[in-house]
This record gives sequence, structure tokens and C-alpha cells, in this order.
Amino acid sequence: MRDERDFIRRLGRVGARAVHDLLVGIGDDAAVVRVSSEKVLVAAVDALVEDVHFRRRYFPPDAVGHKALAVNLSDLAAMGATPRFCLLTLALPAGCAVDFADRLVDGLLSLADRFGVALIGGDTSSSPERMFVDVMVLGEAAPGRTALRSGARVGDAIFVSGELGNAAAGLRYLEDGHATGALVPSAAIQAAIDSLLRPIPRVELGRSLVERSLVTAMMDVSDGLSIDLSRMCEASGVGAVLDADAIPLATGAKVIALRNRQDPFDLALHGGEDYELLFTAPPELRAEIEALATPDVPMTRIGEIRPAREGVRLVRDGKSKSLAARGFDHFREACK
Amino acid sequence: MRDERDFIRRLGRVGARAVHDLLVGIGDDAAVVRVSSEKVLVAAVDALVEDVHFRRRYFPPDAVGHKALAVNLSDLAAMGATPRFCLLTLALPAGCAVDFADRLVDGLLSLADRFGVALIGGDTSSSPERMFVDVMVLGEAAPGRTALRSGARVGDAIFVSGELGNAAAGLRYLEDGHATGALVPSAAIQAAIDSLLRPIPRVELGRSLVERSLVTAMMDVSDGLSIDLSRMCEASGVGAVLDADAIPLATGAKVIALRNRQDPFDLALHGGEDYELLFTAPPELRAEIEALATPDVPMTRIGEIRPAREGVRLVRDGKSKSLAARGFDHFREACK
Repeated sequence: MRDERDFIRRLGRVGARAVHDLLVGIGDDAAVVRVSSEKVLVAAVDALVEDVHFRRRYFPPDAVGHKALAVNLSDLAAMGATPRFCLLTLALPAGCAVDFADRLVDGLLSLADRFGVALIGGDTSSSPERMFVDVMVLGEAAPGRTALRSGARVGDAIFVSGELGNAAAGLRYLEDGHATGALVPSAAIQAAIDSLLRPIPRVELGRSLVERSLVTAMMDVSDGLSIDLSRMCEASGVGAVLDADAIPLATGAKVIALRNRQDPFDLALHGGEDYELLFTAPPELRAEIEALATPDVPMTRIGEIRPAREGVRLVRDGKSKSLAARGFDHFREACK
Repeated sequence: MRDERDFIRRLGRVGARAVHDLLVGIGDDAAVVRVSSEKVLVAAVDALVEDVHFRRRYFPPDAVGHKALAVNLSDLAAMGATPRFCLLTLALPAGCAVDFADRLVDGLLSLADRFGVALIGGDTSSSPERMFVDVMVLGEAAPGRTALRSGARVGDAIFVSGELGNAAAGLRYLEDGHATGALVPSAAIQAAIDSLLRPIPRVELGRSLVERSLVTAMMDVSDGLSIDLSRMCEASGVGAVLDADAIPLATGAKVIALRNRQDPFDLALHGGEDYELLFTAPPELRAEIEALATPDVPMTRIGEIRPAREGVRLVRDGKSKSLAARGFDHFREACK
């Protein structure tokens, strides 16, 4: 069975060839290239495809632009890099409204301004049906000051920023036919919708964690906690145990799961698109890490790194079971 | 009327804001960023959308990968930069053959190896219908050693590398229902097909021209000589006169135009996708420039830069007329 990971592994073998100045190639959140003795360049690319990653029915154009950049800034945040520049590729179907592209770019630029990122290039094209929005970001960091997925060590505590499950809950709510602009019954549901439409990348947090040498491994939660943690464990050659009671379940996820008679943990564990930071650190740094929490973005210890032979496990209601790595695998959907 | 140029102009105004380290923003073939006192980074992005830029019927998968990288390397060649790294975004429809992505990547990597470019990152996704292939390239150059579109001066000679019209002719031939693998009636037609499917970016030539300080302005011929020259003239604030007799018309373009009762000059002037270099230089450098020609890639003086008030003109059969800037405008197709 082919999946995105197999494909990326194959590309990773290509990328594993020694290349002058290449410090981190395919397989992490972003690539790292040496550009001078004082600086490394960090590059990532991430695309939004209409009706795979967003629907025009409930994604306002500015949210498409916002999210296209946000998911990329999240990759840089996961490396602890400072974002500097972005490039935008836009393929628009013939039926798009005249001002759609303008409003999309407005949404992208608004987020770019917030993080001091300049749009320096791009490409535009028509598209026969679906819209395609691809963003590439360039950031910088000091040499040796980037966080990788592969640094987790047995005994490290596992942390996550923010709350989980809101984006998947917001997706469920809007997919059920609710409109973006309609009256939303609660602030929790609105927060879930906002998490889906306009995620805020944890750029400053990622940088703070790396600058203070607080993390051993880091990545962003883009495809779902279960699959992303299993990737981190694989990259680090370790196992992990998660404490279900500790997982910071977003209120919106609880409310929307209840409406749908669903287990809210499924949204938090497998839902994806939360764009929070998942990282590991020596347990004695817990207080220092928790001190970085803000009212909007809690910092929560959710488990512990274990030897690889233990696999990735979840303890819930006193029972420990293997945590299936589930999440959205785009490639599996495409190449069956 | 909105077109791609209007949209890029709008983005260009955004990009024109002073940004630390940004030397060239939106509007040239690639962006230029200062990374150290010895080095600038040159970045470009260019996408291929199925049934806009290629059809699976006659584009073998490896040609899709080859071309996706080639069009980007051509942008770096136009700046005189040395390509180093690339990132690939691939959105594949559900119906694609299992090995399509592998063969596409093989085609990309084969060209990458030829130019010493490493694939360092990417993104994969499903796509509801059409395939989408986006490549971002990073190159480097010495500070002040990049060619721009804006440097053409009145009295400069206008040069083009290689021959023109083949890619448009190859497109016409294949669009008329001929298959890629079928018996091709002549080497000239095969060359036209090859130009369309597997263009060779003029990387070494671009670098040589810039390193030897031979050019005042340079860009690649991607959308068609008429539209690309008009863009160079606009960026440089000049006009131009082209000598139709001097334009190096590819044999394949002549043969295929004849079969279609078409004027081969239309293919060379407005066809696009030739990925040759269009550049200007002081007339006294002509011999030195022509010395860079190879048997496969002639170097031809095709005209002269004139004052802006003269516009862009073509002299053919002793008559001078205004040269309409025609070519394929992707954006006009999309947002009407």
C-alpha cells in the first residue's frame, strides 16, 4: 500500500545524498540550508487544494489566503525559525469572482504583516476546475538553532501548545451544512470555526522554545496528534505513552462532538489541522515551559517518551492501549 | 480588464515596500534576497497545471517532472544565478496510475542532477480532478551579479539564444491528435516536440553572460517573444525594434506551420514556452556574445533598443509596424 509517507521516504532517500550546504532535507517540517557562518535558511512549502483542504462554500477568500500562509508559517515555527519571505502560486478556475484573488491575497498579506513576512514572488495560472493555492516560505535561524523531529529521548516529557480538536470540530460543523457567516450558537463553536479557517501559527512560541534550548524534538500538529506523534517517534527511534486525561481538549470540540454523538477525543487525537506545536523536553524543564503559556495558548504535558519497543500508547480510564496512527493521508486518497 | 500583469503589478506594489535584505521583489523572473556579504539568494516559483500547461495524453510523466523544474531553472538562468535547491508540490487526482508520481519525480531528479540541484522539500496532496505540479527553486549569485529586466538602454542590441517557435509548433502538432510515442515524420518535428516536452534551461549561458558583464537586461522567453520583449521594454522604460529576418525561426516551427497553413512567425513571436534567453547588450559586445554560441544554441542579434516613444516595432519585408504583445495570459483565462 502506497501512502504519502512511503513517497516522502523515497524522496528522503534521494534527499539523503550528501549535498553541500544542506543541513536538513526532506522528512522534517522544513529544510535547512547553510548560507553563511551566522545564518541558516529554513524553507517549507505547503499547498491548499480546493475541496481537499477547503471549500469555497464556507471558506471566505481572505481565509484561504490566511490559511495558505499560516500552515507554512507553522512549519517554520516547528523548526524555531524566524519567517522572512514567502512566494505564492495561485491557480484559479474560470468561474472565480473578479475580486476573489484580491481578497485571498489580502488575507495572506494581513497575516504576513503580522509576522513581518514579505511576499517576494509568485506565479498565477488558470485552472480547469478547482482552485490551487501553494505557498513557499523562507525563514532564518542561527546555525545549530533549529528543532528537529528526531531529537526525542527516552524519559523526555511530551508537550503540546494550545488546545486540540477545534479545527476538526469546526470542519465537521461547516461540512454539516452550517454557513460561515450564519449566526453561530456559541462562542465555543465560533472558536472551532476560527481554528479551521484562520489558524494562528505559533511562531513566537517555537522561536522562544528553541532559543531557550527547551526542546529536544518539535513538529507541528497538522495531520492529527496520533499520526504526528508516531512520525516524531519514528524519526527519533523511540516510543511514547500519552495520558488521555491530560490532552487539552478544546471546548468547541466537546460541544460539536456532543451534537454529533461523537467521541471528542477522536477529534483531538486524529482530527488534524490544529497547527499547534508538539514537542519533547527533559521533564525538569516543565515549569519553565509552562511559564510560556498565555491565556489563549496553554502549554500542557500530555505524556512521556518511552523506548521504541513500547510503541505509541494511550492511557485512558486506567487502560493502556496501542494508539493507532490515524489522520488524513492525502496521498493515499490520490494514488490507490 | 484584469490580466496577470495587472495582478502582478498590484502584488509588485505590495512587494515594493522596503524590506530588509530584499534586493529584487515581485516583477522580475525571480526574487533576490541578501543572505551575506558574499552571497544573494535567488528564488522563483512556477507551476504546471494539467490541461493548462500539459496534457497527460501526450506528456509522459517524466516530461511533466522535467518541465516543472526546467521552467523554474530557466527563471534562475535569466537572472544569471546558479541553481542549488528545489521544492516540489504535487497534487494528484485519484485516477492517476500508481507509478505516475515516481516517474514524474524521476524526470525532475534527472534534470536536477544535470544542474547539481538538490530536492530538499515538498508537499503531496490529492486533487479532485486535475494534476498540479508546482516547483520552487533556490539559487545563488554574488551580490550585484544578477541580471534584471529593467536594465535595457537605448542603443543596446537585442539578442536571443537558440531558436524560437519550436515549442508552440510541437504543441500544435500534439494538440492536433498526434501521439508522443508515434512515428514522427521528421527530425525537425521531433525537435519541436522535444522543445515542448523537455526544454533545456540555459543555465550555463545565463551565468556566463552575467559573469562576463555582457548583458544590460535579461529575461527568459516563456510567454512569447512579443509579450516578453514588451515586458522588458516596460520594465526598462524603453522601446524596441525587431528585425523579422533576423529572428531565428526553428525548422520544426516552419515545417509544422506549413502543414497547418500558418505563418511560422506567429509561432516564434507569440507562441511562447521556448525558454530561451532574451537579453540586451551594448552593440560592441556582439562578437563576444556570438562567441558563446554552440552548434545547438545559436546566439542571434534580433533588434535594437529604441526610445520608449517608438514603442515596440517589427520590421518585416521593409515595413515597420507596431508589434502586438500577444501570448498566453493564464490569468486572463481565469478571472474574466
